Amino acid sequence: MRRLRLGMVGGGNGAFFGAAHRAAAAMTGRFTLVAGALSSDPERARDSGRDLGLAPERCYTNFADMAGREAARDGIDLVAIVTPNHLHAPAARAFLSAGINILCDKPLTATLPEALALEQAAAQSPSLFGVTYTNAGFDMLREARAMVAAGEIGAVRMVRVVFPQEWLATAAEATGNKQAEWRTDPAKSGAGSLGDIGTHAFHLAEFVTGLTATEISAEVDTFVPGRRVDDNVTAKLRFAGGAKGLLWISQVAIGETNGLAIDVHGDRGSLSWSVASANTLSFAPLNDRRRVIDRASHGTAVKGLMPPGHAQGFVEALARLYLDMAEQIEARRDGRAPAADALLLPGIADGVRGLRFVEAALRSGATDGRWTEI
Amino acid sequence: MRRLRLGMVGGGNGAFFGAAHRAAAAMTGRFTLVAGALSSDPERARDSGRDLGLAPERCYTNFADMAGREAARDGIDLVAIVTPNHLHAPAARAFLSAGINILCDKPLTATLPEALALEQAAAQSPSLFGVTYTNAGFDMLREARAMVAAGEIGAVRMVRVVFPQEWLATAAEATGNKQAEWRTDPAKSGAGSLGDIGTHAFHLAEFVTGLTATEISAEVDTFVPGRRVDDNVTAKLRFAGGAKGLLWISQVAIGETNGLAIDVHGDRGSLSWSVASANTLSFAPLNDRRRVIDRASHGTAVKGLMPPGHAQGFVEALARLYLDMAEQIEARRDGRAPAADALLLPGIADGVRGLRFVEAALRSGATDGRWTEI
Amino acid sequence: MRRLRLGMVGGGNGAFFGAAHRAAAAMTGRFTLVAGALSSDPERARDSGRDLGLAPERCYTNFADMAGREAARDGIDLVAIVTPNHLHAPAARAFLSAGINILCDKPLTATLPEALALEQAAAQSPSLFGVTYTNAGFDMLREARAMVAAGEIGAVRMVRVVFPQEWLATAAEATGNKQAEWRTDPAKSGAGSLGDIGTHAFHLAEFVTGLTATEISAEVDTFVPGRRVDDNVTAKLRFAGGAKGLLWISQVAIGETNGLAIDVHGDRGSLSWSVASANTLSFAPLNDRRRVIDRASHGTAVKGLMPPGHAQGFVEALARLYLDMAEQIEARRDGRAPAADALLLPGIADGVRGLRFVEAALRSGATDGRWTEI
Amino acid sequence: MRRLRLGMVGGGNGAFFGAAHRAAAAMTGRFTLVAGALSSDPERARDSGRDLGLAPERCYTNFADMAGREAARDGIDLVAIVTPNHLHAPAARAFLSAGINILCDKPLTATLPEALALEQAAAQSPSLFGVTYTNAGFDMLREARAMVAAGEIGAVRMVRVVFPQEWLATAAEATGNKQAEWRTDPAKSGAGSLGDIGTHAFHLAEFVTGLTATEISAEVDTFVPGRRVDDNVTAKLRFAGGAKGLLWISQVAIGETNGLAIDVHGDRGSLSWSVASANTLSFAPLNDRRRVIDRASHGTAVKGLMPPGHAQGFVEALARLYLDMAEQIEARRDGRAPAADALLLPGIADGVRGLRFVEAALRSGATDGRWTEI
Repeated sequence: MRRLRLGMVGGGNGAFFGAAHRAAAAMTGRFTLVAGALSSDPERARDSGRDLGLAPERCYTNFADMAGREAARDGIDLVAIVTPNHLHAPAARAFLSAGINILCDKPLTATLPEALALEQAAAQSPSLFGVTYTNAGFDMLREARAMVAAGEIGAVRMVRVVFPQEWLATAAEATGNKQAEWRTDPAKSGAGSLGDIGTHAFHLAEFVTGLTATEISAEVDTFVPGRRVDDNVTAKLRFAGGAKGLLWISQVAIGETNGLAIDVHGDRGSLSWSVASANTLSFAPLNDRRRVIDRASHGTAVKGLMPPGHAQGFVEALARLYLDMAEQIEARRDGRAPAADALLLPGIADGVRGLRFVEAALRSGATDGRWTEI
Repeated sequence: MRRLRLGMVGGGNGAFFGAAHRAAAAMTGRFTLVAGALSSDPERARDSGRDLGLAPERCYTNFADMAGREAARDGIDLVAIVTPNHLHAPAARAFLSAGINILCDKPLTATLPEALALEQAAAQSPSLFGVTYTNAGFDMLREARAMVAAGEIGAVRMVRVVFPQEWLATAAEATGNKQAEWRTDPAKSGAGSLGDIGTHAFHLAEFVTGLTATEISAEVDTFVPGRRVDDNVTAKLRFAGGAKGLLWISQVAIGETNGLAIDVHGDRGSLSWSVASANTLSFAPLNDRRRVIDRASHGTAVKGLMPPGHAQGFVEALARLYLDMAEQIEARRDGRAPAADALLLPGIADGVRGLRFVEAALRSGATDGRWTEI
Repeated sequence: MRRLRLGMVGGGNGAFFGAAHRAAAAMTGRFTLVAGALSSDPERARDSGRDLGLAPERCYTNFADMAGREAARDGIDLVAIVTPNHLHAPAARAFLSAGINILCDKPLTATLPEALALEQAAAQSPSLFGVTYTNAGFDMLREARAMVAAGEIGAVRMVRVVFPQEWLATAAEATGNKQAEWRTDPAKSGAGSLGDIGTHAFHLAEFVTGLTATEISAEVDTFVPGRRVDDNVTAKLRFAGGAKGLLWISQVAIGETNGLAIDVHGDRGSLSWSVASANTLSFAPLNDRRRVIDRASHGTAVKGLMPPGHAQGFVEALARLYLDMAEQIEARRDGRAPAADALLLPGIADGVRGLRFVEAALRSGATDGRWTEI
Repeated sequence: MRRLRLGMVGGGNGAFFGAAHRAAAAMTGRFTLVAGALSSDPERARDSGRDLGLAPERCYTNFADMAGREAARDGIDLVAIVTPNHLHAPAARAFLSAGINILCDKPLTATLPEALALEQAAAQSPSLFGVTYTNAGFDMLREARAMVAAGEIGAVRMVRVVFPQEWLATAAEATGNKQAEWRTDPAKSGAGSLGDIGTHAFHLAEFVTGLTATEISAEVDTFVPGRRVDDNVTAKLRFAGGAKGLLWISQVAIGETNGLAIDVHGDRGSLSWSVASANTLSFAPLNDRRRVIDRASHGTAVKGLMPPGHAQGFVEALARLYLDMAEQIEARRDGRAPAADALLLPGIADGVRGLRFVEAALRSGATDGRWTEI
């Protein structure tokens, strides 16, 4: 089976996310990296490309060039966009125009209007479009989704999702921290914690339950003096069908490097998962004992990339999304339907939904927590 | 030191809470049980009293008699009221009139007007008045409170408290379960989950932080068809000084026998505790490693009843409240100020506050979650 | 039902274990404390008795007097012996002679010869005899035992038990710590960690599995310079029927206030428990998902003193042993067989077995770990 | 920086470990796969190579050819050997002869004589030699090692390491499970659990403490009837300098997919780690509160490949070993000393030591657990 040809926008030398994406792609055994606009700095773009073994003529310094020339030579099968948020929209638009499949980091864009425009452009392009909500690649979250879908916890009553982090507990953006700088700059990141981690949390709530969150009542705070974006959000949610939810995201939660966790309570059972124990899922059935479900063991529905007992970490989760995209690309090429689980790859609609969540949370926060349609 | 004489209203043979109260009192080494209105059924009252070694003439069948006659004979130093909620108010009123000190189960009363009336009566009585929010007796929650008060986590930003239970996940009240029957009967319990466990959760939020919750925006649900009281509540809180909060209580949370947990985030650190690990407290200071604090070890401020390594459970926590009350009684008798930590015993104001919380949550819930003053 | 009359040897004012025993007895609702030799210091004995509400003529200053005079007046139904180890044997002997039932702290005696002599004396006395291996009162350890007995994990292959503590990690006995002084004094404690916590660990291994440990290969160490007793022991065990075991006890394990834990692996499943999560038991059946079993919930076999969701701590576990003893006493009085679970109260044979374990471990340690019969 | 050229022996299509090795290599950004003897089946070798993008002339069907021809063309910088155990020795020998650097799966060989012979061969070859004890790539185990070396827990007293698994709890080798077949075939795997997971556990004990285990007293069992290799081993260890140890490995431990864990107790503190919480390390200093150390946070010494909050799983740990090897190769090429942490890559001496452990354990087991020199 011919390997798919991968290109990358962003992710030059020293960028962790670029390296993680390349490892994830490699882990699937389905992609070869062949082109890149790895940096807007020509020297860094060239050096990064050389170090990665790219042909010099496929080391671009801007994504528009790359999209045009790769399309012209029947080049890459997929482009991964791993730039800061504000560049997602223009980069994605270029590759949509070129008819090249896209895997784009989240949040989809910095603002909702951009996202909606991009969604329209995508509707008119033949390109497949995936969004790397990486957590959707954890086997045990897919297991949770499958269990909810199979009715194992009955009708959902409550969803609780939290994503606390500590890294912006003080004014890190004033101390030269580059990540902190662009992520707290409204021009580059859109919203603050809402865009950066809120979109992850919100996606998970809908991904696991299969439900649509219809309304939000949010309290949007900025606790660090001088910060220009939100850094702590508490919210109630209402879901279609009557389930209720609570959401907490924070980037000022001291003691948490990554506290992502979700639990879902239904009328016949409950499920809970946290990234700190990513390889297990807890399941409590009505009137019975709680189960601890180990990844890839004892009747799990999800067939992942890894055997039981080998910890699935960040890169392995991301690899799952690359595998889904490979399957989608190959299925289309071969004129067949993709395997069902490949459709769990978050798509552009999920990306847009993240921006709708951000916008609704901000509006609710600005109106004293009024219930606001998402 | 003469032991204090204890009386009890409710708690006849077979009642777990009565036995737990007696064990807790015994553990302090400060009380002897000498009188009781242990049941309204004369035979059960007499048999229970005999089995507990009470003199027959001090086995009463109603609390009014007991209050009057014990006061007349200079009898008991303290009465413990462990009846269903709707009897708290009349029983407490009888002992207030008699000038006898009171330790009353929570919620203080079934309704806010009753609570306010009782508070007025207490203000005109010489009786000391404690309310058994039992969790306030866990050493590590007192440690948490002391640490917040000492500034170890700085200014509080966020408080999160949850109290999920599973025991009413189905219509247990329709199956002959006596506990379920009275606790879901508005006439006997007042509110449902709000009164039963919400008051615990709310008290803890204020107890640990030392802050006053000023407003609530609540979503009050009844998920089990036919149930006459609330069984699941999600709420945002605002505290004086700007801290924000989230609260979740549920009696339909399958998999949880008792999921009480709290975490508090400040601008210099955070604390978290759960009843499942009641003997440790987790403390994360800013820019430093998380600490796990073991009960009674390594510089803890709280001096409890038990040495390190011996698990403090429910009865040991309750014993702490009896110890506080013994200290308050003896201090008053001896004309001295009680030890400071004895004042951590929740009092009638805390009891009233619980009912204010219930009433504000219900009002907010009835107005689409409008922020409502507590 | 008349309450049983309890006496106590040791446990004067300020002694935690005495207070814990009294609270445990009270929790059962079956005992009234009426007599005591609470201290060998006459003044302290008298003051302690008065504070506990004992009649002055039943406050003794030595246990021999107490045994004789209580027997003469048809006094107490049970004596609890809560002295330092080296006094267990003479005190127990006095009450055996008087025909009074005994509940004795562990280790049964300081040395094996004493234990064997006591066992002989017990065989010739009508007294019932219990030994307070307190952990045997935790509901979930009884649940574990019942599950093994019912074949739920099949034939046992492996048993692992650990009991690490930190409190003697340095030479605490040289700093005026009274507990450390007598517990590291061979004349008062017999062995060191072997007697103090090793007997607990060894009892648990046999209690949960129902198997007899036949041989031990031990490494007995004293890590703290100048200490006169062992403070760290590692050992392999062999059980009748072919199961194997590992045991580690330590009083120099920094970071552990009480790390007691056991796991048992069979050919159809495994069980694990630790005192840090005393209210749950983990059960992994063959080819199926691990279960977390909550105390008193969802089909547990053990009916404890407490409802689900209320944490069973140290005193509640001890109360279970008092309840067992009450049942044994009443059954004998009434001429009926005691309830089966009351027989789980460790008896004198279990006490002797603890000393055999200590002696075998010391002999194995002295012969370079030779497999030694227990 | 030119990327290093990687070859692989074993790891054809469908082999998880081959894919994991390739992802790990990719994650470092330092290697490009250019050659392979991916299978001894010519068709599978060719197809696998094609799918991985190898040139047809560099898809070999035996490792001897590959070693010779790659050496001749100045081909690969490193070969990864990921075959079953019994092929490690001949494959490694071929590449040693060719002067090609080697990264070899563990155990180094199936038997100790093979290992010793290979060690001699390596001593006469210019090749660098690494052994993929993958756990040595977990950041927090490196942190633990660094902390012990820095004296943070003082002199080591006790080491405890366990590695339980469940996958051979029944006779899986009789049911067509390929992994089970070769791993329980003495001709292919050498020892059973000792070689497969015992070598991991033993390496970790020495790796973290920096101590040499001098003697072992082992009980070697085969619990599954008909099995030809050991499946459960319990052992005591003695370390140079006086520390003691306990080791348990099992492949019949129901409920454990991978229970690898280690704790080390010293006279000034203790450390504990388990693969289930691979991204944290627990550290308890003497007379102070336990710390939970998060990967890549708050003063950790180890600089890993990944930022804080992103879970390091199996592939990320393996990537660390590839990074170490890249650094060693480049340092030699550039005539400089490698960065110190690159030397943490386990080498051939560690591989030999694993076989010595296996052999000593078997000898001790065969002599009733006699203390046996390792």
